[in-house]
Amino acid sequence: MDNVTASVGPDEKNQLIDFQEEWTTQDMTFVLFGATGDLAKRKLFPALYNLFLDGKLPDSISIIGLGRNYFSDDIFQSKVESALREYSRRAVQTTGLNEFLAKFRYCKFDATDNDSYQNLHELIHDREIELNIPGNRLFYLSVAPQLVDIITSGLNQSGISQTSGWKRLIVEKPFGSDLKTARQLNESLNNAFNDEEIYRIDHYLGKPMVQNLESFEFANPIFGSLLDHKRIANIQITACETVGVETRADYYDQAGAIRDMVQNHLLQLVMMTALHLPEKMTAEEIRKQKVTIMESLRPINKDKMEQDVVRGQYEAGEIFDTPVVGYKEEPGVNASSMNDTYFAARLYIDNPSWSGIPFYIRTGKRIGTKSTKIVIEFTNNVKQIDALPADGITPNLLIFEISPNEGISLVINMKNPSSNQFEPASINFSTNSEDQPEAYELLLFDAIRGNATFFANWKEVELSWQWIQPLLEAFQENTLPLHSYPAGSNGPEAANQLLQADQFNWW
Amino acid sequence: MDNVTASVGPDEKNQLIDFQEEWTTQDMTFVLFGATGDLAKRKLFPALYNLFLDGKLPDSISIIGLGRNYFSDDIFQSKVESALREYSRRAVQTTGLNEFLAKFRYCKFDATDNDSYQNLHELIHDREIELNIPGNRLFYLSVAPQLVDIITSGLNQSGISQTSGWKRLIVEKPFGSDLKTARQLNESLNNAFNDEEIYRIDHYLGKPMVQNLESFEFANPIFGSLLDHKRIANIQITACETVGVETRADYYDQAGAIRDMVQNHLLQLVMMTALHLPEKMTAEEIRKQKVTIMESLRPINKDKMEQDVVRGQYEAGEIFDTPVVGYKEEPGVNASSMNDTYFAARLYIDNPSWSGIPFYIRTGKRIGTKSTKIVIEFTNNVKQIDALPADGITPNLLIFEISPNEGISLVINMKNPSSNQFEPASINFSTNSEDQPEAYELLLFDAIRGNATFFANWKEVELSWQWIQPLLEAFQENTLPLHSYPAGSNGPEAANQLLQADQFNWW
Repeated sequence: MDNVTASVGPDEKNQLIDFQEEWTTQDMTFVLFGATGDLAKRKLFPALYNLFLDGKLPDSISIIGLGRNYFSDDIFQSKVESALREYSRRAVQTTGLNEFLAKFRYCKFDATDNDSYQNLHELIHDREIELNIPGNRLFYLSVAPQLVDIITSGLNQSGISQTSGWKRLIVEKPFGSDLKTARQLNESLNNAFNDEEIYRIDHYLGKPMVQNLESFEFANPIFGSLLDHKRIANIQITACETVGVETRADYYDQAGAIRDMVQNHLLQLVMMTALHLPEKMTAEEIRKQKVTIMESLRPINKDKMEQDVVRGQYEAGEIFDTPVVGYKEEPGVNASSMNDTYFAARLYIDNPSWSGIPFYIRTGKRIGTKSTKIVIEFTNNVKQIDALPADGITPNLLIFEISPNEGISLVINMKNPSSNQFEPASINFSTNSEDQPEAYELLLFDAIRGNATFFANWKEVELSWQWIQPLLEAFQENTLPLHSYPAGSNGPEAANQLLQADQFNWW
Repeated sequence: MDNVTASVGPDEKNQLIDFQEEWTTQDMTFVLFGATGDLAKRKLFPALYNLFLDGKLPDSISIIGLGRNYFSDDIFQSKVESALREYSRRAVQTTGLNEFLAKFRYCKFDATDNDSYQNLHELIHDREIELNIPGNRLFYLSVAPQLVDIITSGLNQSGISQTSGWKRLIVEKPFGSDLKTARQLNESLNNAFNDEEIYRIDHYLGKPMVQNLESFEFANPIFGSLLDHKRIANIQITACETVGVETRADYYDQAGAIRDMVQNHLLQLVMMTALHLPEKMTAEEIRKQKVTIMESLRPINKDKMEQDVVRGQYEAGEIFDTPVVGYKEEPGVNASSMNDTYFAARLYIDNPSWSGIPFYIRTGKRIGTKSTKIVIEFTNNVKQIDALPADGITPNLLIFEISPNEGISLVINMKNPSSNQFEPASINFSTNSEDQPEAYELLLFDAIRGNATFFANWKEVELSWQWIQPLLEAFQENTLPLHSYPAGSNGPEAANQLLQADQFNWW
């Protein structure tokens, strides 16, 4: 993927070329396991359609949907069309619609039945001949975790994954439920796909604002000079939501916030934030840097875990003035559950760039405000404000808002000419969300053209589980307090104290 | 005014105290020469009223309006009221209105008549006794330039300015028409008022955004570190308007843009921009710094003036799709006038902070867009963009918009996730203009409480004239080309070439 050979010019030249590097799309087959599921309907079909509208799909693409029940191709295509009408970010256009739908075929599929693989193999092959497509095959596993292993084995044993072209596998989280099961899953996947062929989706990495992080420093010299060790006081990464456990208690009461959010999304955001732009903008270089960051992430001290980690569980409360039940009263949740619906922690990355700068992370369900964001708090070298808080000067903040709105804000201090006092003022850049591609659109496009930059690499996943593992054990053994917080609040008071101990507060 | 004595603590401590320093208002008399004029009606009465609404006027204030025609106090007060209803930024409130108007008295006044001074003196004195006001007297000269000298002499000779309290004189531009006349005027003013007592109004210094400049760096450490010699490519100061000479040809055809805008407003903006926050935030310290900047302003090289200076005059054209005449066709303008309606120049401040960083200034009438702003262009150390302009990366800009809207913008590069190209995005902070005090409100309040920070000091004025003087002579002798530009354009092409010679362009 890296088209730069030996360096012949200055470093800038290399960076330039890499940065501009284009991955090309090639004619291919897209095999979607779980094509009648929710993700396909809400995200994947609309993503494919919007890529089609943008002319980003390969000239010839065979899309094969698989599901447990039988549907004719016609019915399946009409299901795809309904999904587009309901969920596409851009309105469905009459022109081209039939052309798009004609790419879809359906195949009834049972993951444990050898005949199913045989049928699938034939259909893939027939369509490859019909459409003159080389053996480039992308498999998307939008299925229950326990089927991932089974299907990849089946693909291997049936010969479907022994193709003359390239093959790629897209898998969704969870990637295991602890270090051991994650390693087992990965070994199993590796029987059929090598690491470069596995695209682990973390949809947070598909958010335009997260993808912007990596280039923001490069393209804006002024921030390049600010995003510097000496000028940053702390980094705060928040991913909070107002919803509770909803209908997912079966899974969630086992997983908890730590597996559902921290091991994957939050640690990926930590890596992306801590990432300093490598000289070569290749997926490989970015992977290397992310791994280096995870390797520098200071292990949680098991004896002093309480100092650095807060776990919580919501109690009854109010969301938008409506009373809601506590976690233990949720349908499907064990009434004595000690599961975590909130997690906050103080992290340190022990490398020269980030030494001494705390990263605070938090995530929670049933928090008063839905918000995913990265806040960079700059050092407040206006030292004298300690003596005069009324002065109104607050630290400068650079905020990357990821959800519900995408945008960048900078919080600065402006003097109010009437009162002659400083007041914080937020200056915002928000993108027009209609024009913004969805995360799945960007990620599917990358997988189609073989750009793995914004997918979770196995080494990152493994190191994340490794970092998390002592916490999983402490949670299991209940050696860490479980703080309660009312639904609709900002989380447990202990999470505020976590920052106050360092003379900071959550933004 | 400086309440800091010998430094007993660290430097930060001093800065803190000075920054917070409050000037107090004292009971006083406000004598307004030109009380029936346009400025009084549009700006001064509304400013006084809004200060009154904010509780910022002294407890007892006697306001005496002077004009050539006779009016009763009642009529005068009703004129004041009409002015408020038409021009006050905040609606006139019934409560308190009579209390406000009752502060006003009127006195018919002829500047060349000794009796007038006698009457005025008696009125001031009577009101001081009536309202128990000490002899604090503020004189505001909103009169034709040729009367300034006469009135200050009269105030001196009549004894009005020999008061037991403090006395202050507010004068409007023009402060002379060249170095010689400016010095003469100043000497004359000094017969009655010493320099600390003279408040020269430059209403650009009253604009909230200009007043913010001085504190912006202090309150925002991130910008403090950016507003640094190494990171700034150039500074661009623009003050352009769409109007032509209007009814002011008598004055303007003599003054030109250079006297009307450059010697005062533009050079004041240069000083304010170049000002690095002094350790002590006193008027005295700021004055000293401004003078130092003017002393470091590299003199225009008379032999190479054309390289650094562009003068222009508008021709017929279109403003907002409406045809308008050229300058020479304007009523009252000499048909062979060589007067400048446009001025642009490259300036250098030869001190360690600004060495090598060009300041580009420009002002013009009949420009397509009305805009007064200060643009700080940061160095673009993304070196490789030279090779790839299509990349879309533009320099980072920090923009202080002064007029018609007040605001701060930061121009950054954002990656468009669809196209993967960088696009410039402007992030803005705009203040709510209704809540913003007008320039005259801020300046009058400062003069009332004796804070001269945002007034033009004599030394600055003198140095400005001194810097301008060779240009005045070159314009007079027509040794510099007079470039024409169509009304509604961006000014003469020569002004673009001025920046292109340095590989920059106007923003």
